[in-house]
Amino acid sequence: MPKQKSKGGSGIDPTIETLGTPKIKSPLPFLFIRDTSGVLIDITADCTNQACSIDPAFFQEAGPRERIYFDPPKTKCAIVTSGGLCPGINDVIRAIVMEAHHRYGVHTTLGIRYGLEGFIPSYGHEVMELTPETVSAIHEFGGTILGSSRGPQSPVEIVDTLERMNISVLFLIGGDGTMRAALKIHDEIKQRGLKISVIGIPKTIDNDIPFITRSFGFDTAVDKATEAIRSAHTEALGACNGVGMVKLMGREAGFIAAQAAMALKDVNFVLVPEVKIDLEGPLGLLAALEQRLLRRKHAVIVVAEGAGQDLVASEGTDASGNPILGDISQLLIREIKRHFKERSIPLTLKFIDPSYIIRSVPANSNDRVYCGFLGMNAVHAAMAGKTGMVVSKMHEVYVHIPLNLVTEGKKRLDPRSNHWQAVLESTGQPMSMRNDEKQHGRIERKASSTADPPA
Amino acid sequence: MPKQKSKGGSGIDPTIETLGTPKIKSPLPFLFIRDTSGVLIDITADCTNQACSIDPAFFQEAGPRERIYFDPPKTKCAIVTSGGLCPGINDVIRAIVMEAHHRYGVHTTLGIRYGLEGFIPSYGHEVMELTPETVSAIHEFGGTILGSSRGPQSPVEIVDTLERMNISVLFLIGGDGTMRAALKIHDEIKQRGLKISVIGIPKTIDNDIPFITRSFGFDTAVDKATEAIRSAHTEALGACNGVGMVKLMGREAGFIAAQAAMALKDVNFVLVPEVKIDLEGPLGLLAALEQRLLRRKHAVIVVAEGAGQDLVASEGTDASGNPILGDISQLLIREIKRHFKERSIPLTLKFIDPSYIIRSVPANSNDRVYCGFLGMNAVHAAMAGKTGMVVSKMHEVYVHIPLNLVTEGKKRLDPRSNHWQAVLESTGQPMSMRNDEKQHGRIERKASSTADPPA
Amino acid sequence: MPKQKSKGGSGIDPTIETLGTPKIKSPLPFLFIRDTSGVLIDITADCTNQACSIDPAFFQEAGPRERIYFDPPKTKCAIVTSGGLCPGINDVIRAIVMEAHHRYGVHTTLGIRYGLEGFIPSYGHEVMELTPETVSAIHEFGGTILGSSRGPQSPVEIVDTLERMNISVLFLIGGDGTMRAALKIHDEIKQRGLKISVIGIPKTIDNDIPFITRSFGFDTAVDKATEAIRSAHTEALGACNGVGMVKLMGREAGFIAAQAAMALKDVNFVLVPEVKIDLEGPLGLLAALEQRLLRRKHAVIVVAEGAGQDLVASEGTDASGNPILGDISQLLIREIKRHFKERSIPLTLKFIDPSYIIRSVPANSNDRVYCGFLGMNAVHAAMAGKTGMVVSKMHEVYVHIPLNLVTEGKKRLDPRSNHWQAVLESTGQPMSMRNDEKQHGRIERKASSTADPPA
Amino acid sequence: MPKQKSKGGSGIDPTIETLGTPKIKSPLPFLFIRDTSGVLIDITADCTNQACSIDPAFFQEAGPRERIYFDPPKTKCAIVTSGGLCPGINDVIRAIVMEAHHRYGVHTTLGIRYGLEGFIPSYGHEVMELTPETVSAIHEFGGTILGSSRGPQSPVEIVDTLERMNISVLFLIGGDGTMRAALKIHDEIKQRGLKISVIGIPKTIDNDIPFITRSFGFDTAVDKATEAIRSAHTEALGACNGVGMVKLMGREAGFIAAQAAMALKDVNFVLVPEVKIDLEGPLGLLAALEQRLLRRKHAVIVVAEGAGQDLVASEGTDASGNPILGDISQLLIREIKRHFKERSIPLTLKFIDPSYIIRSVPANSNDRVYCGFLGMNAVHAAMAGKTGMVVSKMHEVYVHIPLNLVTEGKKRLDPRSNHWQAVLESTGQPMSMRNDEKQHGRIERKASSTADPPA
Repeated sequence: MPKQKSKGGSGIDPTIETLGTPKIKSPLPFLFIRDTSGVLIDITADCTNQACSIDPAFFQEAGPRERIYFDPPKTKCAIVTSGGLCPGINDVIRAIVMEAHHRYGVHTTLGIRYGLEGFIPSYGHEVMELTPETVSAIHEFGGTILGSSRGPQSPVEIVDTLERMNISVLFLIGGDGTMRAALKIHDEIKQRGLKISVIGIPKTIDNDIPFITRSFGFDTAVDKATEAIRSAHTEALGACNGVGMVKLMGREAGFIAAQAAMALKDVNFVLVPEVKIDLEGPLGLLAALEQRLLRRKHAVIVVAEGAGQDLVASEGTDASGNPILGDISQLLIREIKRHFKERSIPLTLKFIDPSYIIRSVPANSNDRVYCGFLGMNAVHAAMAGKTGMVVSKMHEVYVHIPLNLVTEGKKRLDPRSNHWQAVLESTGQPMSMRNDEKQHGRIERKASSTADPPA
Repeated sequence: MPKQKSKGGSGIDPTIETLGTPKIKSPLPFLFIRDTSGVLIDITADCTNQACSIDPAFFQEAGPRERIYFDPPKTKCAIVTSGGLCPGINDVIRAIVMEAHHRYGVHTTLGIRYGLEGFIPSYGHEVMELTPETVSAIHEFGGTILGSSRGPQSPVEIVDTLERMNISVLFLIGGDGTMRAALKIHDEIKQRGLKISVIGIPKTIDNDIPFITRSFGFDTAVDKATEAIRSAHTEALGACNGVGMVKLMGREAGFIAAQAAMALKDVNFVLVPEVKIDLEGPLGLLAALEQRLLRRKHAVIVVAEGAGQDLVASEGTDASGNPILGDISQLLIREIKRHFKERSIPLTLKFIDPSYIIRSVPANSNDRVYCGFLGMNAVHAAMAGKTGMVVSKMHEVYVHIPLNLVTEGKKRLDPRSNHWQAVLESTGQPMSMRNDEKQHGRIERKASSTADPPA
Repeated sequence: MPKQKSKGGSGIDPTIETLGTPKIKSPLPFLFIRDTSGVLIDITADCTNQACSIDPAFFQEAGPRERIYFDPPKTKCAIVTSGGLCPGINDVIRAIVMEAHHRYGVHTTLGIRYGLEGFIPSYGHEVMELTPETVSAIHEFGGTILGSSRGPQSPVEIVDTLERMNISVLFLIGGDGTMRAALKIHDEIKQRGLKISVIGIPKTIDNDIPFITRSFGFDTAVDKATEAIRSAHTEALGACNGVGMVKLMGREAGFIAAQAAMALKDVNFVLVPEVKIDLEGPLGLLAALEQRLLRRKHAVIVVAEGAGQDLVASEGTDASGNPILGDISQLLIREIKRHFKERSIPLTLKFIDPSYIIRSVPANSNDRVYCGFLGMNAVHAAMAGKTGMVVSKMHEVYVHIPLNLVTEGKKRLDPRSNHWQAVLESTGQPMSMRNDEKQHGRIERKASSTADPPA
Repeated sequence: MPKQKSKGGSGIDPTIETLGTPKIKSPLPFLFIRDTSGVLIDITADCTNQACSIDPAFFQEAGPRERIYFDPPKTKCAIVTSGGLCPGINDVIRAIVMEAHHRYGVHTTLGIRYGLEGFIPSYGHEVMELTPETVSAIHEFGGTILGSSRGPQSPVEIVDTLERMNISVLFLIGGDGTMRAALKIHDEIKQRGLKISVIGIPKTIDNDIPFITRSFGFDTAVDKATEAIRSAHTEALGACNGVGMVKLMGREAGFIAAQAAMALKDVNFVLVPEVKIDLEGPLGLLAALEQRLLRRKHAVIVVAEGAGQDLVASEGTDASGNPILGDISQLLIREIKRHFKERSIPLTLKFIDPSYIIRSVPANSNDRVYCGFLGMNAVHAAMAGKTGMVVSKMHEVYVHIPLNLVTEGKKRLDPRSNHWQAVLESTGQPMSMRNDEKQHGRIERKASSTADPPA
């Protein structure tokens, strides 16, 4: 089944940049992955009329290469972590250090402190030498041993520092702001003609990176989030007309809220940024909640922090340039209390915000294996001289994705996807809580099997 | 990109049997999946010479259908669980009952007690009515509320009981023995011309079902197994020349051992059924262990129960007809103690067998979501009149697989796969512990991205 | 060593009221406790000049009695739970039901729904029959299966209901408001000359009940609280000048905050109601925090909800008549941010309020054993015809305490006690954060071994 | 209430030896405990005829003293850990190092590796410098960072090493063998006229140290043991006539088995060393189990490793001189299978031995606070020049106990105590499973409130 290599039907160019031809024999005794090994992006196929239509767009498979570009004893690596905490960061750091040291024989890996600030001399943050000894137990702790910070720093100053420190490979673990910074650093490096590999490991607890089925730390976050939901359920049961409300992460994508509701089936309403709701009116949330309490005497509401932004006023931007969200949970608390007070219906509402507890726990086994592979594959890619790319997992396989593709747009929960439909199915929440919305027609559900491209 | 629908390059026939044309409008308000929606089995592509070669073999995507076959109020379902415990069984039971009752309006779902025995009148086991109330909290408990048993029962007697009880749909949750029984029951039903749907939900803590990336409960099992490994590591560190040995499940496939070793990187040796080892000799395990202790004073060994069966004598078969494995862990303990005693090297060896603790815990969030989808999709398939199939997850998508395909052979850990190579990479264990084995040549590593067919 | 039985040196009267002489032979096959068995309240002794001075005040030891007052088959029990959630309530309920049913042969135990409201016909709450089957698994869940409510109800109406329902024994699980209600119900019963035993099981997650070393659920709460502190520490380490602040329960007593800080030694400042602090000034919290950040770049603050009430305005009272506390944590956040902004010192502050997560978890093993004994001993006391008392644990022994003693005042954390001194010792926090306070002189530390009487 | 200081009615001499008069002003800013502060050993009182009889025997209360003996900057401490693992050892080590360094200003604390072996030059184990940095996170890990070993070593050689290393204080964390070694070391030191303080911190997961209500790590062990019991229960429910058997620690005392059975009430039979049973006969275990299965179809058995030693042959002694116990669990498995096979009753028996998992976990919050106090108080005692003693907790207060008292005999579970009676009460197990034993008469239950002296 021949096809054009460079672009699939989706117009996606999977080409990974390299610093030069890798000529050194890999010191690894293992089997190798060829650069020609690809992984399909859309794995579903519409099979009508005795034939299937397949989109051949793919990404390069990650893994160790037979020939490497950098000579390990002369290679110096640096790792920086940036943005908010997420389970598994220390696992990725550990895996990079262990792989570079034990498998390739790289002698020096430096840890840049407190995010991109650590590159800027005026902050005065010292670097940290990362050895197998210093990182051996860090995976047992949440957070990042390097510290983090928010906001951009000058790519020029960053590359100055990389040159001064003689860095060959820079690993950046961070969110979309960090990946955009990585792209700028990469461009600056190219402009200067330097041989420095820039490898990103995308981090987002919200799971909103395009092409990536499930970002690292997401599974741990969902697992921990269910604890808060269980508490909210227990509190709701503890009073007549008890309502437990849990606010979860999800600035623009409701994946954690949706997944956690699927994992602990005591949730009755899930509010996510992608699905607008009305509060008032016959089909609005308040009426639906009232009916639920009338029937069952308790209810659990899970609200993503970015839900209902049309109902609250936004409040400027933070250091990273992300908009500061309006506080939907406080609005809901106020409106629910008002609604039931006006109707003289007794109500006990308990509100839980477990965000910092969730994002700061150590990774669970699933994420730990995941982060181990991310770190190993990041080192494999870097040593082979690849650059301007990220390492990630797609459909349970590790792939190389060009940096520019992951910085364009964000993944969103599709209300027509299997996943959201299953949330509705398992919560029993109405298909829509909009008064003016026509009922969904009987159209085909969107296959959930695509590694979702940016919306 | 047109192709033959019926068979891919692998010669796999994804056709799902049906009891008849589904004519009833589904009561679900949700979006639907078409029968023509397929999911590729092999999602990797070899992209040489500007073109990719793709294997178009696929399975049908699972999900709710617009037209159903059974009229819900007249439909009676039955669920049976068989074989050993595995995290998540109760979650599947709960999801089936909830979906059938709340979404489709099925009034009766019966629980068959103690596995296939429950169908056989002479055992005298009573059936259990499963309602939303009786199952609402069962996911908080491990095991199966229905009880289980091992070994085959007469398909004729089973179908007699199904007829007598007026069952329309039979859900079987069990291992490969149970899936073979399901196939026989399905054949008996067809022969009698009955309209009873037989839907399997394959259960194996060993993760050795063909085509299924990760079987339900596997993730929970790995997570729990890491606790035992952590203990073994702590014990090993607690003595000079301390050795911690953990025996894990894995009769013929070493997936749990391999994955757990990836999840908790304190493991130094992983022994699995798929990779033969020598004990004695310069490259054997005992010499490798001795060198490790000399260097680091402690070591952790993880051994799958089915490893090294060439070194021990097997001991007949159990009630399910599975061979009773020789006890490799006892052999190892004996041989290690002897080896070090002969050399007058002090040694402290602690052995942990956490199998029953691992398999009896409740499912974690990840498996809970998974089991929820399995249950929901099993009901969708059954109500649509499909039969002789299993519901499972492949590459993160839920699919229908014909029963006969999952009963042919078992999935094995491929020593040439990324996964095993990564185990070697992270443990530092020798590529081979065979004295006579030639070193692996520099051949291509096998892509891990295929939903492995039976070996 | 003869002494007055009725009163010790502390003037405490341990006499327990009874409904009459117990004449029925206990159906229990076990050994029995005599009414004359006492447990000393103050177990420390000042041993100067070759002699010790011992305070002989004691409480009656709890346990099964050889003769009982109520005839089990004719006895009807009722259980009510009131006030906020606390780990272990379901364990106490379960133990009462199991003990009454299996050991004594009581046929009926009723659960009153939603606290004292459940006795008042106008609320329309139905009672719940509590059998061994309905309660067998409830200890695996947090909260209370009976539901709860706040606020007083008419003792006259309550006793009307007790009479109408033919209740012989009323078990009340609740806080100090509930114990005061129990006393009023007990008085009303006496006035009517009824033979109804009133037994309290004091519940307070704040651990502020006089005479009770550690109230049930406290240990679980502390254990869960350490999770939030660990998260705060991880967040604090994740930024340069990171501050993690955790708000814990403790309206008037700082026991949870103090104990949790002892359990997870990453805490640098513990603020409790019993110890006043200044924010400003050279010895105030803000200056101390600034010095800590200068030195170590991160800090963890634990603040009991009732700390610093002199710094914030109170806000009326709640349904139970408890004052609504001013929000000290919001004040601290505001003032800390202002302080560091004024000095242009970068600061990242993360705030965690885990209260509802903490109080709604199931009891841990320690509390589970404790609650089991409370329930068993409550039934023993009731069946023996005792009334107007609570069952509790003092110095690891179970005792009977007259209701009137536990409703007088509350236990407080003594800043001169070993416990608080050890908190200072382990956190490194200054002895005092008051500018005008003279340094503590070298006076004797107060022995912590007294079962603290009300302050 | 005057009395003889030196000895109570029990003839217990609480006198603590000292190296000399403490003359140095303590650097601690805290309040102090006087040497005259005592804690009563027996806190129960028999109050007949208007008077109570109190046993005035006491131990000295632990805590910081106003005057210390050692000059901190000149003081060198050493810590050794010996015997089997137990949760909390690292917490004790950490607390000693932190207290000595931060509170007293001791510059050097050495860690002796691999138990008493570490003192003997011929083993070649190097010592480890223990600083606040090296110990800051060790409490997050189980086991002991120092390693351990079993068996005695020459007190002469040990004291030679202490002299050569210039040690002022030796802290020994270990079991009764280690406490006996401590006594011998203490005697050797005295004989040489050295000024070296010997302070023991008794460790026993079996909770069998005389006078100590609950040894450190016990609570964590019980909590972890309940997990195994829950698994056994799940396995038992998973088959018709399913039996789950759990073997727990308890060589000569059944405290863990008894407490765990109280904590997870699914246990039906608890076998402990202190209570003999018959297997055969109408009142034996096999008949009782058969009846249980007939009635309920599943059963859970918890067996302490030292139970039923009259039924199995012992097998010599281990390196520490402890007898190697006969394997009661294997005997039970064999006999139970035989019994049911002979009667053609189907049976599924699952056996779990979680010992190494239990003893190697990190301490829970309760034990963590406990171990923190043990470490702090050990340092307080040592710095004050006390020696030949152990620090421990009795009735929730920390006390000093002369070494010779804790090395005499072991604490046993008293079958007539409240605790064992409550085990019978909650399991429903027969009062006796001995065929020839007369039923217990109606005698008084023994108060559980005494800090049990050695049996």
